[in-house]
Amino acid sequence: MKLATYKDGSRDGQLVVVSRDLSTAHYATGIAERLQQVLDDWNFLSPQLQDLYHALNHGKARHAFPFDAARCKAPLPRAYQWADGSAYINHVELVRAARGAQVPESFYTDPLMYQGGSDDFLGPCDDVVVANEAFGIDFEAEVAVVTGDVPMGAGPEQALDGIRLVMLANDVSLRNLIPDELAKGFGFVQSKPATAFSPVAVTPDELGEAWQGGRVHLALQSSWNGRKVGLCDAGPEMTFHFGQLVAHLCKTRNVRAGSIVGSGTVSNKGVEGKGGKMEWPKGYSCIAEKRAMETLLDGQPATGFMKFGDTIRIEMKGRDGQSVFGAIDQEIVPLHKD
Amino acid sequence: MKLATYKDGSRDGQLVVVSRDLSTAHYATGIAERLQQVLDDWNFLSPQLQDLYHALNHGKARHAFPFDAARCKAPLPRAYQWADGSAYINHVELVRAARGAQVPESFYTDPLMYQGGSDDFLGPCDDVVVANEAFGIDFEAEVAVVTGDVPMGAGPEQALDGIRLVMLANDVSLRNLIPDELAKGFGFVQSKPATAFSPVAVTPDELGEAWQGGRVHLALQSSWNGRKVGLCDAGPEMTFHFGQLVAHLCKTRNVRAGSIVGSGTVSNKGVEGKGGKMEWPKGYSCIAEKRAMETLLDGQPATGFMKFGDTIRIEMKGRDGQSVFGAIDQEIVPLHKD
Repeated sequence: MKLATYKDGSRDGQLVVVSRDLSTAHYATGIAERLQQVLDDWNFLSPQLQDLYHALNHGKARHAFPFDAARCKAPLPRAYQWADGSAYINHVELVRAARGAQVPESFYTDPLMYQGGSDDFLGPCDDVVVANEAFGIDFEAEVAVVTGDVPMGAGPEQALDGIRLVMLANDVSLRNLIPDELAKGFGFVQSKPATAFSPVAVTPDELGEAWQGGRVHLALQSSWNGRKVGLCDAGPEMTFHFGQLVAHLCKTRNVRAGSIVGSGTVSNKGVEGKGGKMEWPKGYSCIAEKRAMETLLDGQPATGFMKFGDTIRIEMKGRDGQSVFGAIDQEIVPLHKD
Repeated sequence: MKLATYKDGSRDGQLVVVSRDLSTAHYATGIAERLQQVLDDWNFLSPQLQDLYHALNHGKARHAFPFDAARCKAPLPRAYQWADGSAYINHVELVRAARGAQVPESFYTDPLMYQGGSDDFLGPCDDVVVANEAFGIDFEAEVAVVTGDVPMGAGPEQALDGIRLVMLANDVSLRNLIPDELAKGFGFVQSKPATAFSPVAVTPDELGEAWQGGRVHLALQSSWNGRKVGLCDAGPEMTFHFGQLVAHLCKTRNVRAGSIVGSGTVSNKGVEGKGGKMEWPKGYSCIAEKRAMETLLDGQPATGFMKFGDTIRIEMKGRDGQSVFGAIDQEIVPLHKD
């Protein structure tokens, strides 16, 4: 099934069930008001939502209305945990190669993961508010999952069973603030502002055969100022699948219902093109990668980061060509508009 | 006023108001069921709780019962944000000096802060469950605050106004997992398991003159296996006050109601003793500091980390000698008891 959270002026919004084709929606009132409630009591509440979803898909839900992604908050407008992996090791290889650094051997067996702020997520069409363009504004197109309860010490297979929902994320990054925070070793506080999520979160069964081995085998589209810059396959090159990422997170602590775990920037390897020159035919899911590609080819980056007024659209189509999660579609705006 | 959350089998527990002397309590039913609700709507709900607190202190609350810290969850059993600073620079100096490392100049103007997991906090008397003693189990006695909404870009003074509650924390640390995570630069995921908080969270006015300039001017007691090992003054040596810590956190993002911000290990400078030898008369608020002291004096640490069955008690007395927050009082236990 597909779930979203409509804005209603409250902090947590109103849970709605959305039809498979994203054309109609229905308030879940009477079953649950907020998505966190459903995650807290999944086995009892999710079958009731599933029934409503079935009725909605068959045009039999009595109070259905046209679904509008612009009215959505993030499916979880605030969450008790947001831990973002960096599971596409090609992303790490590319960025490090551009600055002449090696990838430590341990990175191939021990996932990179940072703990992010989860008190103030952005809806899919909310503005990305930044105080200063000089911070180096970048998008990061990712896949993310929402978990149920996963006990401390669970292995990757058990952790995989704990995944309840899948969605897309724009893990906005302030690139010029990252080096100082990386040097401190304590992770990202200022260089990772509020993250945005797709209009709709879907149960893994909605992905059909595209959900395999804890990976989403579909292409993630990124369009920057209306120009398609990335069409990266989220499947085979995900070095650590979501079960492995959740297991990493729960090695020394319980992971509780409603935790969000991200994939990190979806990234595909380059291929050798004409004359032995590297090419990246699938493009990029963040500007930092584009700049790394340019540095590797030409010795320096040519592409600047995002400016106020820039837009970013992130979407994933199913094998039927339909949008699975709806689109993240945001504009970068200054903190104080005059 | 003083607030706590009683265990009732649910994830969020039941909000109770606790008398100033911690002897009696009263359910806040009818006003709010959960502390997060109060933080979400502070101006409307907190005066009602204040009235109940007043009645309770004067023996006029109708359904008061004896307060029992052992029945408490953390005041916020789960939260939307837990960001822990390292605001006592002496702690950083001590630990770095022991390994022959310098403290970068920027650490005196730019706070260290990591984002922690906030989905599964421990109550003040809950066991600290760890899979393996070899992880290097340590306590960290800290002060923490809970904020209201603080907008992006707020300065230290505005941030200080956004502080709603003060409490104590035991930021359990797995010391032997820290070096690898520090080297990755992405912060702490596995080396910082679930944090515990004091039975009671108090509004800053409860601290009277001990709350000055965003610091708590009282001594924090740590007792390890019943032996007092630390009586550290939390006030004057706090390099960054809580307003500065919250301002650091909200530089690039909004901080939302119910965010918890920690001070890091409370730490006091050593003094020159007899024969010019350094002494630390106020002791330590984490074992890592004790080991650093030993290394500076004798070239190597003599004190081991915590073992299964060890206990840690953390408490703060007011100027009247009464416990302000109640005591954190925990035992270290293995993940799988036979």
